[in-house]
Amino acid sequence: MAPGITATLRATRIDVNQTGHIKIDATGLLAGTRGESDIAPAEVAALAPRFDDLQPRLRAWRAGAAPSFLALPFAPDTAAILARARELARRFRRTIVFGIGGSSLGGEMLVQALSPHPAPHAVHFFDNVDPTTLAPLAEHDWSDTLLLVISKSGDTAEILSQFLSCLPTFEDRFGSEALREHILVVTENPRGALYQIADRLGLEILPHPPVGGRFSVLSVVGLLPAALAGVDIEALLAGARHMTERCAQPDIDRNPALWNAGAQYLQLARGRRQSVQMAYSDRLYPVTFWWRQLWGESLGKRDAAGRACGLTPVEARGVTDQHSQLQLYLDGPDDKQFTFLVNPDLRNFGERVPARFADLAAVAPLVGHATGELFLAEFEATRATLARHGRPQRTLALPHADAHALGELIVLLETETVAMAELLGVDPFDQPAVEEGKVLAREYLTKSSK
Amino acid sequence: MAPGITATLRATRIDVNQTGHIKIDATGLLAGTRGESDIAPAEVAALAPRFDDLQPRLRAWRAGAAPSFLALPFAPDTAAILARARELARRFRRTIVFGIGGSSLGGEMLVQALSPHPAPHAVHFFDNVDPTTLAPLAEHDWSDTLLLVISKSGDTAEILSQFLSCLPTFEDRFGSEALREHILVVTENPRGALYQIADRLGLEILPHPPVGGRFSVLSVVGLLPAALAGVDIEALLAGARHMTERCAQPDIDRNPALWNAGAQYLQLARGRRQSVQMAYSDRLYPVTFWWRQLWGESLGKRDAAGRACGLTPVEARGVTDQHSQLQLYLDGPDDKQFTFLVNPDLRNFGERVPARFADLAAVAPLVGHATGELFLAEFEATRATLARHGRPQRTLALPHADAHALGELIVLLETETVAMAELLGVDPFDQPAVEEGKVLAREYLTKSSK
Repeated sequence: MAPGITATLRATRIDVNQTGHIKIDATGLLAGTRGESDIAPAEVAALAPRFDDLQPRLRAWRAGAAPSFLALPFAPDTAAILARARELARRFRRTIVFGIGGSSLGGEMLVQALSPHPAPHAVHFFDNVDPTTLAPLAEHDWSDTLLLVISKSGDTAEILSQFLSCLPTFEDRFGSEALREHILVVTENPRGALYQIADRLGLEILPHPPVGGRFSVLSVVGLLPAALAGVDIEALLAGARHMTERCAQPDIDRNPALWNAGAQYLQLARGRRQSVQMAYSDRLYPVTFWWRQLWGESLGKRDAAGRACGLTPVEARGVTDQHSQLQLYLDGPDDKQFTFLVNPDLRNFGERVPARFADLAAVAPLVGHATGELFLAEFEATRATLARHGRPQRTLALPHADAHALGELIVLLETETVAMAELLGVDPFDQPAVEEGKVLAREYLTKSSK
Repeated sequence: MAPGITATLRATRIDVNQTGHIKIDATGLLAGTRGESDIAPAEVAALAPRFDDLQPRLRAWRAGAAPSFLALPFAPDTAAILARARELARRFRRTIVFGIGGSSLGGEMLVQALSPHPAPHAVHFFDNVDPTTLAPLAEHDWSDTLLLVISKSGDTAEILSQFLSCLPTFEDRFGSEALREHILVVTENPRGALYQIADRLGLEILPHPPVGGRFSVLSVVGLLPAALAGVDIEALLAGARHMTERCAQPDIDRNPALWNAGAQYLQLARGRRQSVQMAYSDRLYPVTFWWRQLWGESLGKRDAAGRACGLTPVEARGVTDQHSQLQLYLDGPDDKQFTFLVNPDLRNFGERVPARFADLAAVAPLVGHATGELFLAEFEATRATLARHGRPQRTLALPHADAHALGELIVLLETETVAMAELLGVDPFDQPAVEEGKVLAREYLTKSSK
């Protein structure tokens, strides 16, 4: 997909304004088939009592009474992370991160969405064990490179395999002394293998917060890679704190997380079991992959009664997927609800189409307009067409797609996920089903010939 | 996602074997909830009469009686495309492709899956009008670069906007003479804007085949970018011809496209309306994005009775998405069916985990095993776990993930799509719903301030 192929060429001269506030237009979530509204605002308001147990927990989490994602934006260690990142960015030209799932998706989102282009310090994420992808590491010149190894439990097979299979190369290259200069480990459990290995090698260990990986982006897990890449993590956290306060509002009509979770829940009850998050901004596209884990792993499980719950998160990229998925979205089964992520300021960027070929019917409407204007016009047209077809949708607009606005978006989507879990009656913080596969993988591996 | 971030570092030393045959294991498509089979093979066989009208069309298409994707692998122009690509690859160090949807997804799939790493000639695809992504083109030094502009109709707003907004830069840089050396156009309609513009500028125009974009990968649309990147397009087409013959088998039990479409249709009838294609191979991951358009745009529409049809195609990447989506796949609603794309030979690649930390419980099972072994063990574990949870799944194994095997896969998935459309009673070759949005986008753009 283009973000991959074009990564080598991508850059931007768009200024990052640090005080952007996210704009939420969720009225379209009340739309029903063929455009008539089939959900009354009162129906959403009527869900308020369903959040009575959650609200005190949200406030306690925000206050830091218990370890929680909502306390992260208020953590006191930001200055230390920033100082550390600056010192490391001076010593190294690039960082390679070994992490998977919650250990990589958040950091990758922050780096791709917010790092200046070209980034003063490149951060690359390795989140798979495909040997084809790992092969170049064997020849990589690590002299200018910091390796950041992230695993909450410290027992993640993929991360241990990545790290340990590279270790001999490292030691040949640096010896055990310099090795310590080049490797940082982020893990939580002192009994975990990663912690034990780092301890024996004398590597520095940064503590992973006692928060699930998919909710950890606003801790060192996401903040350190982001700060290394030059992201303004203070603005990010300021935005996160701002949204945390909004999501602490007891009144559902003033609480964006509760209201939006409620409206999406009512659409789910009407059979819209797929949630499409479509980003009209290449830099925001990685948000959809971070959210896909957050939404999928937090909600896709059984409730106390054993009922299978969850909506399938589907990522999409505007305008590109208008030429791939829009036909299905418009005329296919009415089983989807949509969230648009858009940077409205892109309207003001891009080269303009010259008047020269204005006599051609397909060119005339484009003349004098910048690529960014077309980009936004396509977004508005897609949203309007979905509405005309009665497909429920909302828009989360991030002015300048800056750090402050993204901080707000992250907390909104996290709190929304927890609120949806409350309505579904599932625990958003566990993932009971994946253990079975991990055990089985170890069995298959042991049987596999050495 | 990682394929993006790691693209700059990715390489491989895996040999490409040119005679790999795809291996299809579709028995799991008969599986029902909780592991008991709920679809009898006889049920699939009973669908055979539903293909009575399609079969003569498939044969006619293959014979080239009418323009069709099935005739493309037999087209006589391969040698010319190859010769042209070699000549261009000598003159230029890289190619930039302007194309969107069917004009980019196929070529990008071929280049990412099959080009030698590092590629002798880099091919970059620009398939969006986000000005952030297009910005670097304004400063790009085109002296070593070929620009390939692809649009079947020649009226695609995004492509015209990309091309015309870059044109002044080009002309300043080269003047109208040298311009012709640097730009190639692929389009079909002589009345289309792209054709007209190319004609006035004296640019060379290569004919887009009279085949829908999403079915055009095995024409110049996909073959030229692939050949430029060093892909063995002759092996690719040999594989495509091989699968075309298999898909011409009248007996449904011997025809993989008809049988697999039938089995997936029966699962759809049982409520599995989402089709997840999960690639256990980073290089095959772009196949899921090409297929996503093929499946979504060909099937997501209304039948003659006005019923909304289609399955939602969902892309996924192994093992990474085990840490993001597997929880949902296992314990979430039983509304999905799965196709695994896997390169079994990756088992034999990658660095091995040393014995040094074997005393640690999480490390012990990994010791002595290469990352590729873990990769395949994780695939087998995921497949087995889904089967235990009664989730229907099949595996398409591509030995060496080579050009021959990918050619087979492409024709299998294309023919399967047409066969599924036949069962649903929809036209796989149109996309009636998207026109509305295109008209609306032009309106919004005209209103937008210049």
